[in-house]
Formats: sequence, structure tokens, C-alpha cells
Amino acid sequence: MEVQLRKAQREDCSRLLELIKELAEYEKAPDEVTVSMDEFESAGFGTDPVWEAYVAEIDGRIEGMALYYVRYSTWKGRRLYLEDIIVTKNRRGQGLGKLLFDKVLDLSKEKGYSGMVWQVLDWNEPAINFYKKYNATIEDGWLNASVSHN
Amino acid sequence: MEVQLRKAQREDCSRLLELIKELAEYEKAPDEVTVSMDEFESAGFGTDPVWEAYVAEIDGRIEGMALYYVRYSTWKGRRLYLEDIIVTKNRRGQGLGKLLFDKVLDLSKEKGYSGMVWQVLDWNEPAINFYKKYNATIEDGWLNASVSHN
Repeated sequence: MEVQLRKAQREDCSRLLELIKELAEYEKAPDEVTVSMDEFESAGFGTDPVWEAYVAEIDGRIEGMALYYVRYSTWKGRRLYLEDIIVTKNRRGQGLGKLLFDKVLDLSKEKGYSGMVWQVLDWNEPAINFYKKYNATIEDGWLNASVSHN
Repeated sequence: MEVQLRKAQREDCSRLLELIKELAEYEKAPDEVTVSMDEFESAGFGTDPVWEAYVAEIDGRIEGMALYYVRYSTWKGRRLYLEDIIVTKNRRGQGLGKLLFDKVLDLSKEKGYSGMVWQVLDWNEPAINFYKKYNATIEDGWLNASVSHN
């Protein structure tokens, strides 16, 4: 099995959105994905793009993705934020997640950022154990707050 | 007492960093602020800037700030992320925080974002009560993870 990593292109967007919806189901929130295909595509490949992604392909099919963007910590400066790392269900446990994670971690160094940050659900033990292998700091005590306009 | 709100300028950076350090002390992490003045200034006003901020002035002195940038939610699309909202200690309880919060909340609407997001420490009751007045969703269960390169 050969895995190819490459930067995501505009034409990958519909497959990426499929994977995003698959993750939302795993996270028990399938109805929370309200982003439209148009919005998603333009935010990645339109004027003034916000996100970038790497994809992992097997036999020309995208089976995993890591989507990220820059964030700014007033304590630590620029950091890469890993918004989503997703491997489709029947390809888990085959190393795709590690390939993708290593790729964006390397990228955060190449860009000269002070680190990489992300969030994980407190019940998602497989993910937490995976991150611990990287000596990641995993911090309790912060609540996510939001106001939605729509 | 008249409060003036305006966008932060490059020459405000040293005062902003003072306020950031004041907040870090309140959050019991004064040694965590390792960002340099150069990095902070260039990330706000150099090539390809990452953050913007509003400042609240009284008699020409900056007494409060709200620092923000765009984030991308694969569920909800573009959102404004409020990284820091800070009012200096002896000016708290005078409405500066509300003015700043309202300003960035309005801005997130003007920009057409789907909402505004931020984080709050679970023991910071005054802040949580303030946010509840906005019917903010305050969500438990997520852990902050990070790997630092320096």
C-alpha cells in the first residue's frame, strides 16, 4: 500500500467535505456541519484564502486530510493551528494519520512558527494517546465560547 | 469619562504588550509570555499581518484592548477569533470591556463571518457571567493541545 501526500487542490473540496462530515458523525455532531460547498471552496482557494490542507491518497483516492491555518498567540507568537486531521474509517490504523500529522508539524517548523496547536475531545482516548507520543502538552481548564450569527 | 475606541496602530505595540503581560499575571502564567516585541509588531503590521486589534483610550492612554484574527471552522466557515480582551486593572467595571466586545462582535457581522469564537478559563466567573449576557454558547469537553518548537 503506497500513500501519497500532497497539498489539497480546489477540485478536492467535495471529497474533503465528505471527510469533514464523517468526522462530525464520529464526534456525535453530524448536524453541526452547516458550511456550504461554495463557502468552503472560496475560503480555501478564492481571494484571500484562509485555510490550506494536505491530503493522503491511496490509489488516487483521498483517504485522509489535515486542514490548518495560522493562528496568533499573544504569548507565543505565530503558531500553526491544526483544525482537522481525519482518516476515513476503513483506513484507520494504517499510519495515514501519522504521515499527515508529521507533515503539518514539519511545516509549522519550516514556517518558523513557535509551535503547533489543536484541540481534542476529552473522551477521545485513541487521539490523546497518539498525541502523547509527540510529547504534546494537553491542557484542561479552558472552555470554548461562541456567538453564532446564523 | 470619555472612552475612545480606535483600531490599533504600530506605535501602540509596546502598550499592548504591557496589557498582555498584565493579563498573563491575572491568568497565573506570567512567565508564559515569551513573544518578542519585534515578533509581535511584525505579526500585526509587517508583511502579511496576522492580527488586528481595537484599543480603548481614556485621556489619550490605552486602558483596554481586543485582539482578534480570522479562523476557519470546517463546520461553520469563517469566524472571528477573539484572542484577547483586556482591560487594565484600575479601569475594570467601567464598561470598557463591553465597548470592546461589542465592537469586535459587530465587526464579525460586518465581515460576513458566521460568528465569533473565543476561550475562557473555567474558573473565571466574572468573564463567564459577562459572556452569558450575550447568550454565548460555552462548551466544556475540549482540551487544548500543543507542541512547542522553542
